[in-house]
Amino acid sequence: MSLRVHKYGGTSVADIQRIANVAGRVQKAHDGGDQVVVVLSAMAGVTDRLIALANQASKTPDKRELDVLLATGEQTTAALLAMMLKARGYKAKSFLGFQAGIHTDHMSGKARILDIDSKRLKKALDEGNIVVVAGFQGADNDGDITTLGRGGSDTSAVAIAAALKADVCEIYTDVDGVYTTDPRICADARKIDRISYEEMLEMAILGAKVLQIRSVEFAKKYNVPVHVRSSFNEEEGTMVINETADMESAVVSGVTCDMNEARITLKKVPDQPGISAKIFGALAKAEIMVDMIIQNTRSGGQTDLTFTVTKDDFERALEISEMVAEEVAAEEIKTATDIAKVSVIGLGMKSHSGVAAVMFEALASENINIRLISTSEIRISCVILAKYAELAVRTLHAAFGLEKPRE
Amino acid sequence: MSLRVHKYGGTSVADIQRIANVAGRVQKAHDGGDQVVVVLSAMAGVTDRLIALANQASKTPDKRELDVLLATGEQTTAALLAMMLKARGYKAKSFLGFQAGIHTDHMSGKARILDIDSKRLKKALDEGNIVVVAGFQGADNDGDITTLGRGGSDTSAVAIAAALKADVCEIYTDVDGVYTTDPRICADARKIDRISYEEMLEMAILGAKVLQIRSVEFAKKYNVPVHVRSSFNEEEGTMVINETADMESAVVSGVTCDMNEARITLKKVPDQPGISAKIFGALAKAEIMVDMIIQNTRSGGQTDLTFTVTKDDFERALEISEMVAEEVAAEEIKTATDIAKVSVIGLGMKSHSGVAAVMFEALASENINIRLISTSEIRISCVILAKYAELAVRTLHAAFGLEKPRE
Repeated sequence: MSLRVHKYGGTSVADIQRIANVAGRVQKAHDGGDQVVVVLSAMAGVTDRLIALANQASKTPDKRELDVLLATGEQTTAALLAMMLKARGYKAKSFLGFQAGIHTDHMSGKARILDIDSKRLKKALDEGNIVVVAGFQGADNDGDITTLGRGGSDTSAVAIAAALKADVCEIYTDVDGVYTTDPRICADARKIDRISYEEMLEMAILGAKVLQIRSVEFAKKYNVPVHVRSSFNEEEGTMVINETADMESAVVSGVTCDMNEARITLKKVPDQPGISAKIFGALAKAEIMVDMIIQNTRSGGQTDLTFTVTKDDFERALEISEMVAEEVAAEEIKTATDIAKVSVIGLGMKSHSGVAAVMFEALASENINIRLISTSEIRISCVILAKYAELAVRTLHAAFGLEKPRE
Repeated sequence: MSLRVHKYGGTSVADIQRIANVAGRVQKAHDGGDQVVVVLSAMAGVTDRLIALANQASKTPDKRELDVLLATGEQTTAALLAMMLKARGYKAKSFLGFQAGIHTDHMSGKARILDIDSKRLKKALDEGNIVVVAGFQGADNDGDITTLGRGGSDTSAVAIAAALKADVCEIYTDVDGVYTTDPRICADARKIDRISYEEMLEMAILGAKVLQIRSVEFAKKYNVPVHVRSSFNEEEGTMVINETADMESAVVSGVTCDMNEARITLKKVPDQPGISAKIFGALAKAEIMVDMIIQNTRSGGQTDLTFTVTKDDFERALEISEMVAEEVAAEEIKTATDIAKVSVIGLGMKSHSGVAAVMFEALASENINIRLISTSEIRISCVILAKYAELAVRTLHAAFGLEKPRE
């Protein structure tokens, strides 16, 4: 007997008929002799509808109260699935975040799970129940309801799988798995059978929306095997697991493209200690996440400082930059919002050299000019003009032979 | 500084605009220097919509899960009001039933409040918050969410008022107060300024929908002054309070009419000990509430046994009656669903005789035949044919001079 956590996203529970399909899948696993915990998102569209309602109540809805409101979405689907399973003769029980012992910090709207007291869930499983948990939510030290941010149900599921030492966490979604790149951009995109936590993490950070970043971090930390698969068919999806030796045979596993960044450059900043701290300190204080940071040396004791932020934060980041620019006597500020960040990701980079060269040459062969470059141990990202984004993705996908299955 | 509990029903929070009106009323009370606890129902129609959704998921939705689902209705309005008050610069905080310390028994769907741990509410009030509580819900010993049945938010409000020793519990609704009878039936109906708990209880039991029965029991038990008033104007409504000496000057305070009963008669039942216990024991086991019970002696060691149940329970009650009738060799079963129960209620009955005679004469003067009679210390009820219901109400209202204000 194994213990499986199933997680179903909003499109998989979009209406009663789809919830019935979910019930069918869950029953099948249970009939097969497995213990099953089901973690659910809100019905597709419900969270947006609730946010719209909140915006009618207040232009800037209070975050604590917004969490109380949003938590109703998952509460609804959890209750519906549990009553459906019971109507079909199964023992089942729903649990809200606080009932499932999901203990978070106080950050309303983007709370982080601190720990899970899985006593009640374990007891319900031992009593033969199919356990249904409302995803996306928890409770803080004060007993206040918190939510985990967009995609938070993924994190609920993985965290519960970790706490219960589940054999697998199956993330059921509306795509077949993790692809080498976005199939809407590149027809040659191929489903990846197995991917390491590290690669998945980079891909999630770079905008592959298939898993919430936090959920991958959790899976990695607690070594939870995650199976990303479709709720609309029976195909195997993508296993997200610990790095294995054979994974490194592929130099590059995937190509991503993020259109959601904007660039700000402070020109001719005095090249003195403390200048960077001033600007990035001010941005951090405003809770603006900076992605890439590039500093080039110029002649004459001056330097150009470039960074990227998400388009959502761009206006605020620009205001702050203008204030700091004046303070530090920078010559001017240049910005660009018509940019795209294309990245190649692969564990193989750790042991293979020359990946960057292949990437730059491929882009150059299509006359795509690279504006900024940043790298991690298993990733190389280039900022280019947005209009070249799709071409760049297809070019890189072909350059690294991603259309061919991994050996 | 006084402590006021406000309760707003579904029509008073039916949309964002009406919730804004509620916010206005609450602010006004708070600005006037009072501490305010607001208890809210779900938006009008939402509970019915959720029940319809549950019925799509299961023909007989599991009660525990139905409570989890229904509780989202009040959760939504509580969050919306709290964020609206905060947007207007007030300190405010929402509490769900379990957060408000509302501790109930395990009876999903019709749980009874056992006690209230008001620590968190008191703390929030002491910190200067307007406290917003989701009505209709609580949590049982297991931490499961329970709901209090239709109109349960009234009971939440009165119970919270009792726990906090509030100065008044104001029930804001879509009517101006408690009327001498239904104004839709009798144009002369008059708003009652003050009514005793006992009279209100009888009126609630008899179908005056303005307050949940349990809420009046709570108010009586803990001596909570309840003010029933309209959320759409500033008029004083009806104060529900302890009996005072001058209340007895009115012999009859109100006339009610309940069209929701059905009658079952077992003809020629052997007049032996234990027969009644058999039938009413079986009905109780099926959780069917019996209202009136009348037994007439017949000649020949046989008796007729008549009782009434709500129309909802009629079919099931009839099935049970048929089984018992066979068992005890009753001759036949007669039923009637086209009946109405008209009642007159008044504390004055305790000290005035002749009320019954006035009632029977008034009905007789209009040729309305009385089928069944039952009485309590402060009430006389007559079952008549449903087609005479409106006429009977108007006749009794006039016979007891209810169109004239109490002296």
